[in-house]
Amino acid sequence: MLKFSIHKKLDGTMARAGEIETKNGVIKTPAFVVVGTKATVKSMTAEQIRSLNAQVVLANTYHLYLQPGADIVDQAGGFGKFMDWHGPTMTDSGGFQAFSLGAAFGNSVSKVATSDVGVSDISAVSGQLAKVTDEGVMFKSHLDGSKHLFTPESSMEAQWKLGADMIFAFDECTSPTAPYEYQKKSLARTYDWAKRSLARHNELDQNKEQSLFAVIQGGRFQDLREEAARSLGALAQDSDGFDGFGIGGSFTKDDIGTAVGWVNALLPEDKPRHLLGIGEPLDLFNAVEAGCDLFDCIAPTRMARHGSLHTADGRLNIKNSRFTTDFTPIEASCQCYTCLHHTRAYLAHLFRADEMTAATLASIHNLHFILRLVEKIRESILDDTFHTYKKEFLARYHPPKTS
Amino acid sequence: MLKFSIHKKLDGTMARAGEIETKNGVIKTPAFVVVGTKATVKSMTAEQIRSLNAQVVLANTYHLYLQPGADIVDQAGGFGKFMDWHGPTMTDSGGFQAFSLGAAFGNSVSKVATSDVGVSDISAVSGQLAKVTDEGVMFKSHLDGSKHLFTPESSMEAQWKLGADMIFAFDECTSPTAPYEYQKKSLARTYDWAKRSLARHNELDQNKEQSLFAVIQGGRFQDLREEAARSLGALAQDSDGFDGFGIGGSFTKDDIGTAVGWVNALLPEDKPRHLLGIGEPLDLFNAVEAGCDLFDCIAPTRMARHGSLHTADGRLNIKNSRFTTDFTPIEASCQCYTCLHHTRAYLAHLFRADEMTAATLASIHNLHFILRLVEKIRESILDDTFHTYKKEFLARYHPPKTS
Repeated sequence: MLKFSIHKKLDGTMARAGEIETKNGVIKTPAFVVVGTKATVKSMTAEQIRSLNAQVVLANTYHLYLQPGADIVDQAGGFGKFMDWHGPTMTDSGGFQAFSLGAAFGNSVSKVATSDVGVSDISAVSGQLAKVTDEGVMFKSHLDGSKHLFTPESSMEAQWKLGADMIFAFDECTSPTAPYEYQKKSLARTYDWAKRSLARHNELDQNKEQSLFAVIQGGRFQDLREEAARSLGALAQDSDGFDGFGIGGSFTKDDIGTAVGWVNALLPEDKPRHLLGIGEPLDLFNAVEAGCDLFDCIAPTRMARHGSLHTADGRLNIKNSRFTTDFTPIEASCQCYTCLHHTRAYLAHLFRADEMTAATLASIHNLHFILRLVEKIRESILDDTFHTYKKEFLARYHPPKTS
Repeated sequence: MLKFSIHKKLDGTMARAGEIETKNGVIKTPAFVVVGTKATVKSMTAEQIRSLNAQVVLANTYHLYLQPGADIVDQAGGFGKFMDWHGPTMTDSGGFQAFSLGAAFGNSVSKVATSDVGVSDISAVSGQLAKVTDEGVMFKSHLDGSKHLFTPESSMEAQWKLGADMIFAFDECTSPTAPYEYQKKSLARTYDWAKRSLARHNELDQNKEQSLFAVIQGGRFQDLREEAARSLGALAQDSDGFDGFGIGGSFTKDDIGTAVGWVNALLPEDKPRHLLGIGEPLDLFNAVEAGCDLFDCIAPTRMARHGSLHTADGRLNIKNSRFTTDFTPIEASCQCYTCLHHTRAYLAHLFRADEMTAATLASIHNLHFILRLVEKIRESILDDTFHTYKKEFLARYHPPKTS
């Protein structure tokens, strides 16, 4: 079971810097969690992940449950050992993907629901076959169409086999635009599922090898978010309770700090808080300021595979023709492997030539950028320069538009 | 210019172990040359190539000439620097690809010609638009259909810009099944092109930075192969002559030692001999025994991307279902990164999940296997155990079929 300690709180904000101790190592928080969906960070080796000083890797339960199956990962000694990552690990609950991939076969169901949908059968939204009941979520595999049922209990069983240090309770991830009545009903279900998840987790994990995070939902409704924080927060008070919290759902850039702040103001202070699926610089600053400790996101590597590269001056698209004769690194000051060894012209060539190494080199750079950013945010909390750092960073990264 | 020294000749064979000294480092021969077609070894970083103790990388002139263009590679400081490979480098002449890719858009023209074809216009063979004249080869780009002319002079100019340590004279790569009359005529043209290549090379390379290899063709006709070896060999006698030899064309497993032996028996002994496009274990043993020093081949990495992995007991197809629960390395005794860190089950998962890292890990293993094999062949020449090593290796790799 994890141990969380807070080293510094930033006055006038909810930001904090601390450490999570797991049996596989220490995570200095705030921390960015690298996503290795199918027990591999796309286009990268485990050695390359280590060389980035990544602290923790998250795999997706939905994907590994379907392929190669939780039993094979269990036989391998858990997904970390399976992929040769020996540091701290996480798995998500499988809920989000069961809705988005299982339901809509690639459509992001939770983000496209229209505001007049108020039913518990997601097929009304997607026209597909994921079905939510109080029992769980019935979905079709995006790989072969086979039918599966995820319940709080089966999610805990799958995550037990996948063997991560930190796991998540099974939750219903609603659309942020779903109406109040549906969100309220869904939230009651997620609360019930959280308790069922906790009960099954405690049965399975007698030696407390895994730490279980409850997931706070509630859409964009302050009273629902606060109710979820209070009710699930109350389940973290004793030693058999939750060890941390995930904050789920979708947000806009404008309200992320506000919505996350509602939740963190009420959650127990002594448990880590993981904001699920967020990885853009502006969002990271705002969420840290609002009290979050952990973040995971596929954006750095997905963007990289499409040639979109982070720099201090914002993103650049390496496929732009002006880079074909630019013999400077992506960023002159960057210390990542890619910038130390290669030019923009070389990357531009690899992308044009459709070479796999393009994805590898771009992913190394983008992950390095985001990992270093969150490290620097942590340092800025510790030395009380957070506000200055945030202001200066964002002024360059998102410069004011000139007309 | 290279310096070649022979340290040991194996009695009763033409095998020899030596060293090629280039301005970018020493190559211990026999050596396997890693192919980085478009200035990248597919799915691998330069660091990964270095970690395999690869000695020399070959890029393809045809590919780099079309994309990103020889001028950009020139501005980058040559293809080695462009790709961050700082050891010895080679480029081929562009001839083979102009025929096979430029002519037939993916068909391997030089290997499909029928025996009744005796014309100098390859369009009669392929129905495509590569046209061979005494001037050179007119071909259409496989990328965009644009028309290009390769001549001995333009090949030297492109290779000068690509900047490799060792380059090849422009040659016509005929089909191994082309009839005698066509081969004879083609050989005269290749001889003429070799002289033109040499002349243009000496104009461009006043400081002798590059070493030029002539290419021996002649199909499977002993008299033609011998004539080519004699006539081109004679052009290597003075300091402005050829610095080494390539042996081109296709062979069968049965005749490779014989056909290569005809040539090497007549070539000057003091120049390195590169057998083009060969990389299977049996062929490597036979060609070394017949006096070859260098080999390049895309087979190890192409096979790897398709899941076909070298082991001492022959190839295995990692996509076979029996490997999905096999938690042992590809080879227990192998010291490559992949075998030290991963199981067959993990690789089987990555291939099934269509993850790019599958190609990377499999390529590392196959290249390590072939590089180590050629290193061991070299050692076996030095310590007079070549025949035993060859026999033992092949008995395991190609075990006798049991009925």
